Amino acid sequence: MAFSDHLSQIVKSVDGAVAASVMGFDGIAIETHQTPGADGLELSVAWVEYANLLNQLKGTAETLKTGKVSEVVVSSEKLLTLVRLVNKDYFLVLGLLPTGNYGKGRYVLRVTAPKVAAEL
Amino acid sequence: MAFSDHLSQIVKSVDGAVAASVMGFDGIAIETHQTPGADGLELSVAWVEYANLLNQLKGTAETLKTGKVSEVVVSSEKLLTLVRLVNKDYFLVLGLLPTGNYGKGRYVLRVTAPKVAAEL
Repeated sequence: MAFSDHLSQIVKSVDGAVAASVMGFDGIAIETHQTPGADGLELSVAWVEYANLLNQLKGTAETLKTGKVSEVVVSSEKLLTLVRLVNKDYFLVLGLLPTGNYGKGRYVLRVTAPKVAAEL
Repeated sequence: MAFSDHLSQIVKSVDGAVAASVMGFDGIAIETHQTPGADGLELSVAWVEYANLLNQLKGTAETLKTGKVSEVVVSSEKLLTLVRLVNKDYFLVLGLLPTGNYGKGRYVLRVTAPKVAAEL
């Protein structure tokens, strides 16, 4: 299954999902699937910033006793951003409208991440 | 109601909660309530690092079109960290065991944040 198929599947199966992406911690997206609902949100800019922060968070968590970070969720006024780490270099990111299905989004990322990891 | 009362109330009402704190974005805690379940997790070190990251995230989100950040959740192997922004200077943070009640934790922080804000 291609990355684009995984991503469109994620967006289709979660209510309120507007975009999903496989990104590197360098801030460069391998593949992105976006719906018209994401228009005007400048997601790519936001996610490059998040990649930078995640990179620091990953480094921090490894040196702390709380163990490796697996997931990060950032809720803002217009967007919920769910991030699931795929491996040390890549992560899955899903953008949801604030009314979207948060729990389903977390679940779908959790089950999709190992499938994406197997193909990287 | 004193900060310590709010914090002990939060920890008591959420299954799996091990610690809660009112912290400034400068990484300095105003008040912390911790249970023996938090022993060995070095939470204070982790949270100072998170405060630093949140500070950047807050600045980033303000310049992006996704609106102000209200909540951040970081899941790691040994701890779920739920962070709820109280105002521009302070946030509430709750540490849960990975088996803890994530949804209840988010809810309790959301309803407690305005009460804490009113007392700051």
